[in-house]
Amino acid sequence: MGDIVKIAILGGDGFCGWPAALHLSDQGHDVVILDNLSRRRIDEELGTSSLTPIRGIEERLSAWREVSGKEIGFEHLDIARDYEGLLSFLQRFQPEAVVHFAEQRAAPYSMKSAGHKRYTVENNTSATHNLLAAIVESELDIHVVHLGTMGVYGYGTAGMKIPEGYLNVEVPTEDEGDNISQQILYPSNPGSIYHMTKVLDQHLFAFYAKNDSLRITDLHQGIIWGTHTPQTERDERLINRFDYDGDYGTVLNRFLMQAAVGYPLTVHGTGGQTRAFIHLRDMVRCVEIALENPPAAGERVKIFNQMTETHRVRDLANLIAEISGASVEMVPNPRKESAENDLHVVNETFLKLGLKPTTLSEGLLVEVEETARRYAERADLSKIPARSLWTAEQIAGEPESLAVESLIAEQSVDALQR
Amino acid sequence: MGDIVKIAILGGDGFCGWPAALHLSDQGHDVVILDNLSRRRIDEELGTSSLTPIRGIEERLSAWREVSGKEIGFEHLDIARDYEGLLSFLQRFQPEAVVHFAEQRAAPYSMKSAGHKRYTVENNTSATHNLLAAIVESELDIHVVHLGTMGVYGYGTAGMKIPEGYLNVEVPTEDEGDNISQQILYPSNPGSIYHMTKVLDQHLFAFYAKNDSLRITDLHQGIIWGTHTPQTERDERLINRFDYDGDYGTVLNRFLMQAAVGYPLTVHGTGGQTRAFIHLRDMVRCVEIALENPPAAGERVKIFNQMTETHRVRDLANLIAEISGASVEMVPNPRKESAENDLHVVNETFLKLGLKPTTLSEGLLVEVEETARRYAERADLSKIPARSLWTAEQIAGEPESLAVESLIAEQSVDALQR
Ligand SMILES: NC(=O)c1ccc[n+]([C@@H]2O[C@H](COP(=O)([O-])OP(=O)(O)OC[C@H]3O[C@@H](n4cnc5c(N)ncnc54)[C@H](O)[C@@H]3O)[C@@H](O)[C@H]2O)c1
Ligand SMILES: NC(=O)c1ccc[n+]([C@@H]2O[C@H](COP(=O)([O-])OP(=O)(O)OC[C@H]3O[C@@H](n4cnc5c(N)ncnc54)[C@H](O)[C@@H]3O)[C@@H](O)[C@H]2O)c1
Repeated sequence: MGDIVKIAILGGDGFCGWPAALHLSDQGHDVVILDNLSRRRIDEELGTSSLTPIRGIEERLSAWREVSGKEIGFEHLDIARDYEGLLSFLQRFQPEAVVHFAEQRAAPYSMKSAGHKRYTVENNTSATHNLLAAIVESELDIHVVHLGTMGVYGYGTAGMKIPEGYLNVEVPTEDEGDNISQQILYPSNPGSIYHMTKVLDQHLFAFYAKNDSLRITDLHQGIIWGTHTPQTERDERLINRFDYDGDYGTVLNRFLMQAAVGYPLTVHGTGGQTRAFIHLRDMVRCVEIALENPPAAGERVKIFNQMTETHRVRDLANLIAEISGASVEMVPNPRKESAENDLHVVNETFLKLGLKPTTLSEGLLVEVEETARRYAERADLSKIPARSLWTAEQIAGEPESLAVESLIAEQSVDALQR
Repeated sequence: MGDIVKIAILGGDGFCGWPAALHLSDQGHDVVILDNLSRRRIDEELGTSSLTPIRGIEERLSAWREVSGKEIGFEHLDIARDYEGLLSFLQRFQPEAVVHFAEQRAAPYSMKSAGHKRYTVENNTSATHNLLAAIVESELDIHVVHLGTMGVYGYGTAGMKIPEGYLNVEVPTEDEGDNISQQILYPSNPGSIYHMTKVLDQHLFAFYAKNDSLRITDLHQGIIWGTHTPQTERDERLINRFDYDGDYGTVLNRFLMQAAVGYPLTVHGTGGQTRAFIHLRDMVRCVEIALENPPAAGERVKIFNQMTETHRVRDLANLIAEISGASVEMVPNPRKESAENDLHVVNETFLKLGLKPTTLSEGLLVEVEETARRYAERADLSKIPARSLWTAEQIAGEPESLAVESLIAEQSVDALQR
């Protein structure tokens, strides 16, 4: 990708899509954002908003023009519902690549009610499928880079390293002969409706890669942390989203907020859940690397694990407590999951291709100071608790405390499995 | 299921759903059909109709009342689009079981155009997901029996018997220690968008069984053959659907039609594709057996292979040619698939639970005489050829012959992987 290429960023107004769009535009590529702004509408539905003062998409784009002299296009389009609009955009713009961030991405939000489950399944499945069907119909040769999640693997694989998408297995034969060796899509075990939609996406990709020779890269991403990239920092009007609410805020951001406002960091269960993380800056770089290394037509879907380190939740809490002086408190877990799990992940592809990871230990302090403390006054602390419960039994057995004001200080891992 | 139970049949106006509804009503159960009659609308879209003179749903139901003294209820409802209607039906009727046939089920139809792909994905995924979400929301304990397909397994598993849904694999460890043994959902390899939707269904089921302890049985069904059951034969107004067109007609029905009208049976490619079959009567009995043997709450999805014999397409053609005196002709294959494949399938569960299979060799002659020849005059022979092509290359390379009249006599295996 030394050349200038045309790239469409689906979901380019979101937390990952916006810095990715700026980075790729900064590299000189011709970038167009497609977004239906649904994430902003969900903020209204939940009565929440980004801790950081994000601007409207038009203001963002004109600020970028002003600051960089570069133009990013914008199409207000629902890719799940407006197939014709998507197709005609592809035919008009003729992108070499599409980066697909445009999905409902919060696990707790996806579990809130039947309506939220249905919205998540329909939005995410149709968004992905419309894109694939439109590329086939357009007859253009477009590389699709999709943001998937580490959460499709499921956790707790005893002592085994999670490979990059595909697993070598041996199938015993009936006649006591040699085992048959096969490489299969890693068996999935999603922990929420949201994660399940990423499993469905995998099967859509596998089919279109096989049947139509579409070139697809699926990035199995860990939980993003960090808020700023060199581009978003150039002007406050370019600032990126920081979610800290019980639905969209990741565990890390919510710890950061609690630390910033002097609340104890509340850890669910034993805090023994291990999760994979990657800094926003590294995500942006990974997307670029993925764009530079497309699969050939006819090749199976390329799957990269996009994460740089793993941590247990209680260790994270301790790390932030250390930096910020906050205390740590343990509370019951609203998720249906095992209390403790190990997580070992292969992430060689990106490292070999030149990724230089930003580590939590170097970056966290900056986050506490330059994001959480700086904008703490904008925070609505009543939005921090996670109120989504995973099952009917959990809803029936909901502890009193989950409904009361004291909850303001509660920290959840609900948003962990990004 | 010795007792009378309340059973909802989703898609109960269709080829499988109708005889299943009659059979279960005949057994004394309280049966309600939910159907949006989309299959009849698709007949209009394609300009086709059932070879057999099927009646409207209201006439069917009143004929059954007259003949049997039994009442089958009917709700005209789109389960993919009318979630509230589905939920309120469940709350009102409080079924013990739901049999879910309500999906777009033709592989060639699902490949016709981007619109058909999108319809199939959205209809099937939303139908299944709405059902699962509605059951959770209703808080009723309902056993879901779903009709899946043998086609999710993909074909060509070298010498290995296809197990019932789950595969034992060994995962080599890195440290040269013992392999880890695991049982996983059989790796899928769907051959069309339609088949892919059944793969998506599997992941929806796995999630809801795990997260919400829903009780689900998924029947991986072979290609149905045969038209009549003892109930549909009681009165001509109860007659079942017989599809012979290029989209919905299975290979067998289309051979039967060709034989009945004196055309050569055209086999695609070498005719070396092996497929699994089951008679309509046995399907109905399998559904009953599945209803009698639900999984416990908290158990994983029960998967049964619902097929009784496998045949190569050329052997089928020869069998029918023998019975009917027709000749056999070979033509190019419009599908993207391997020319020859073996297929060995485990189907012990149903046999152990008492299924007595009807074999092709006993039943085929009846079909030629009592269905194909009897209604041959109603046939529109121009509808027999399969016109859906799987990929852009195939569309570009479409042989002249696929567009001309001579095609009337062409036989396709497009509808094979039922
Ligand atoms: N944030 C994380 O920690 C994380 C971790 C792993 C994977 N991911 C994945 O990365 C992607 C982006 O995540 P994010 O954190 O930026 O989420 P986000 O919600 O901030 O951004 C998603 C964007 O997509 C848009 N969108 C959603 N549905 C759309 C539709 N139908 N048509 C057009 N636009 C639509 C939204 O308006 C939003 O701007 C998601 O697919 C997510 O699953 C994120
Ligand atoms: N026929 C076969 O050989 C075969 C083989 C394997 C599996 N199956 C499966 O068995 C099931 C039934 O197949 P069939 O041959 O009876 O198909 P069919 O098309 O004759 O019947 C399906 C019925 O479902 C209804 N339907 C579809 N979408 C609906 C919706 N959204 N809401 C309400 N009703 C809806 C249709 O109107 C139709 O009456 C399908 O799921 C199919 O995949 C069939």
